[in-house]
Amino acid sequence: MSYQDLLQRLGAINDVLTSSSVLVWDSRTMMPPRGVAVRGQQIATLSTVAAEMLMADETSRLLDAADRATAHLPDDAAERRGIAQTRAGIALHRRIPSALRHRQAELRATAQAAWIEARAKSDFAGFQPYLEESVALARQLADAIGWSAAPYDALIGLPEPGETTASLRALFTRIREGIAPLLRAVSAAKAPRTDFLQADYPVALQHDFALHLARTIGYDLDRGRLDPTVHPFEISFTRDDVRITTRYPRNFLPASLFGTLHETGHALYEQGVDPAYSRGPLATDFGNLYAVGGVSFGAHESQSRLWENHVGRSRDFWALHYGALRDRFPEQLAGVDDETFHRAVNSVRPGLIRVEADELTYDFHIMLRVEIESQLLDGTLKVKDLPTAWNEAIKRDLGLDVPDDRRGVLQDIHWSTGYIGTFCTYTIGNVMAAQLMASARQQLVGLDRSLTDGDYAPLLGWLRDNVHQHGRRFSRNELLVRASGRSLDPEPYIDYLTAKYTALYGVVPT
Amino acid sequence: MSYQDLLQRLGAINDVLTSSSVLVWDSRTMMPPRGVAVRGQQIATLSTVAAEMLMADETSRLLDAADRATAHLPDDAAERRGIAQTRAGIALHRRIPSALRHRQAELRATAQAAWIEARAKSDFAGFQPYLEESVALARQLADAIGWSAAPYDALIGLPEPGETTASLRALFTRIREGIAPLLRAVSAAKAPRTDFLQADYPVALQHDFALHLARTIGYDLDRGRLDPTVHPFEISFTRDDVRITTRYPRNFLPASLFGTLHETGHALYEQGVDPAYSRGPLATDFGNLYAVGGVSFGAHESQSRLWENHVGRSRDFWALHYGALRDRFPEQLAGVDDETFHRAVNSVRPGLIRVEADELTYDFHIMLRVEIESQLLDGTLKVKDLPTAWNEAIKRDLGLDVPDDRRGVLQDIHWSTGYIGTFCTYTIGNVMAAQLMASARQQLVGLDRSLTDGDYAPLLGWLRDNVHQHGRRFSRNELLVRASGRSLDPEPYIDYLTAKYTALYGVVPT
Repeated sequence: MSYQDLLQRLGAINDVLTSSSVLVWDSRTMMPPRGVAVRGQQIATLSTVAAEMLMADETSRLLDAADRATAHLPDDAAERRGIAQTRAGIALHRRIPSALRHRQAELRATAQAAWIEARAKSDFAGFQPYLEESVALARQLADAIGWSAAPYDALIGLPEPGETTASLRALFTRIREGIAPLLRAVSAAKAPRTDFLQADYPVALQHDFALHLARTIGYDLDRGRLDPTVHPFEISFTRDDVRITTRYPRNFLPASLFGTLHETGHALYEQGVDPAYSRGPLATDFGNLYAVGGVSFGAHESQSRLWENHVGRSRDFWALHYGALRDRFPEQLAGVDDETFHRAVNSVRPGLIRVEADELTYDFHIMLRVEIESQLLDGTLKVKDLPTAWNEAIKRDLGLDVPDDRRGVLQDIHWSTGYIGTFCTYTIGNVMAAQLMASARQQLVGLDRSLTDGDYAPLLGWLRDNVHQHGRRFSRNELLVRASGRSLDPEPYIDYLTAKYTALYGVVPT
Repeated sequence: MSYQDLLQRLGAINDVLTSSSVLVWDSRTMMPPRGVAVRGQQIATLSTVAAEMLMADETSRLLDAADRATAHLPDDAAERRGIAQTRAGIALHRRIPSALRHRQAELRATAQAAWIEARAKSDFAGFQPYLEESVALARQLADAIGWSAAPYDALIGLPEPGETTASLRALFTRIREGIAPLLRAVSAAKAPRTDFLQADYPVALQHDFALHLARTIGYDLDRGRLDPTVHPFEISFTRDDVRITTRYPRNFLPASLFGTLHETGHALYEQGVDPAYSRGPLATDFGNLYAVGGVSFGAHESQSRLWENHVGRSRDFWALHYGALRDRFPEQLAGVDDETFHRAVNSVRPGLIRVEADELTYDFHIMLRVEIESQLLDGTLKVKDLPTAWNEAIKRDLGLDVPDDRRGVLQDIHWSTGYIGTFCTYTIGNVMAAQLMASARQQLVGLDRSLTDGDYAPLLGWLRDNVHQHGRRFSRNELLVRASGRSLDPEPYIDYLTAKYTALYGVVPT
């Protein structure tokens, strides 16, 4: 009975957080321009209210009672984990001084405006003082949270609990040695044709096909919707209302195709969380005060990458669905067959921009950012020296010269929002997606056959059973051990990239 | 300084209430079907949080300090009125037992489902027990709030402070004697042609024209948006984000035309509230815990009726805008000129359904409901005798036989939601609209000329100055006295209807 009392209290806190998520969704899809004036205040108030409710004596009292009432249960029972997650969230809040939170929120608004202007002018100096304060505040945050080996560890632990600077370094070293020779070989091979991807693709038809794709892989539109936006995202107001967004550049078809598959992958995670966890601590991260069902950002990203890349960029996928695409765009795709299309959407070309990167070069963009973030945090790199460090790393890893800061160090929004420590979760998502896919192949007889037939239910069912349903109950590595017998392991990812690109490009790693 | 501290606290309460309004808007325009499962809980939580914040000792402490700091100001200074409004809201909350609120909210969910089913089957008996409990709870609410002459007074006072059963009876008697002879004369005259209003009007074109109308009369789309919905409404999240909705039945053009003008009228009120009142007690009714800028429901309705009827159904309006309408629907309106169109959208025909009623019969629908509500509240009418009472009144006032309860006593959603006491505000809106319009005509030289020219800025400016900007600062009658020299007065309304319909139908009242 007592755990139910706790859930009722946490349910109300969850309602406040998910209400805030509705306001965020609205502000990025529906809100009229001048609504922005008060929207920030409304969201800030809900965040304060939720934090106060979480830290109130009443919550602690209910936690203690629930703790006593469930003490006989095993450590990994949902109730025990729900209590532990809530306690961890409260402890995190207690460690962070409210003045620091407040200053970070204030800086975010001005820093983002400064970043937009600096990027437009390709003028790093205009952004430098804001980034310097952001880094200083991030360091204060790390110190408040606490760390032992490296201050950066504290920041990584927020989106990706359990990961550290050292563990990332080991992971990245292995990925680098695993894929650098492959990238060299592919870069030397003949590039496939891609010109038709830049034809004129009317937005309404792109939207129609995006919706078709989302539905095809299992997105439940009775519990979701797809809208256009500038920077695509997925957002959840409990498993019964999980929304995705995408963008439709007229002259670049892959953005909406793979963007939609990516966000749908996130949405399938949220739609699959155990209904019993709804509105509770196993569906919401009270530490980050963010309504999200995934156990870590990396675990969430694994689901988006799995559907985007392992399913959506596969030869089988386009063998099946290319006809429906060409029916909608007969002129734009005239003379292009499914194999040509498949090669085009998997073409590899080292580039300057992370969000435009292919699967084989993407992680180099991440590794460079993580390296820089860790050095900024421990003080071995000064903000003023950042452009030089950036440009040198791009030259070293991708062999490119950075012509200006706009296409270099100023390209990402992340640092202007004060978020330092989240880039690593993209590569962790890639690694985890391959690991899960390899396990599903081993465990599910006939999985490849079902994918060839366009039946995505067996794969979705396996992910529901092994990942989605658990919400935040198990840690990311617990989840991986249960699903694959191992904690995070880069080998299936390296194997996947190697098999894929040697076949596509007819090369051997050099 | 102290009043500012109070405003900061009230601003946060306002943020919670407007967040709830965003959730309501979303649920009626955007939410996927199964989102409904948790949306009710989210809204209920925000409502509880706002009430707790309002009733907290902290709020009372800030109120007392603000009271002392502003004691030297005149009674009608914005600060004094803001404090008084907040105190009144708190006092109202204190008087209503939370068990009663809770039971009303519970009953609302089941009663509404029962009403939907009963209406579909035209079976009053299926709804009767729910209505009996609704009436009993409404009576308990009236007793909790307090009343002297009649229990119904307490309920009327919520949406329309200052109005009573007795004052409404006097108002209605005068309206009835003023317009009944007119209705008799018009009913005996030849009916205008209206067949073309029921042609096939594609929804996208209706939406396009609705947006054009809203913009034409002054709706600021940088601070608003127009979406389709089932039951149209206007909703405000502060003056900088005021949204309207409309419906587009394919086979009945007037619904979207006049529905849009109506909701735009509401929106112009909210968009015009003094920016200094934003997020404060002069922009939000803390008593009803509802984010609304108007001083009463009737005052709000006056703005929608003014733009819908006095402007939107005028001869001048269609002389100017009919061309743009016919350009969009050349086939549907072939052979119909602007005068024929104007007559059609002003045709009078006594009918059974309130929401389909014309200007001349509408108030009879209201007067009958108010009479019934007051009798239910003081016990002189029993719920089981309601259908008979209803049908007799329709026969008496409109000369019609009610064929079934679906088109009779079961037609309105109001009673199933537990709201008793709001119907009167529709007629008060009609009366107040005519009174304000008559004053504007007297005070603004050249008003009619500007309306003939399609320049709505002078009228909107006068309403901004005399009504909108004040938000909830002045009572409805204070507002009317300031604008017109008199409190609520039915004569301009009777004059308006008489002049309009004698001209349109070429009759004299009999």
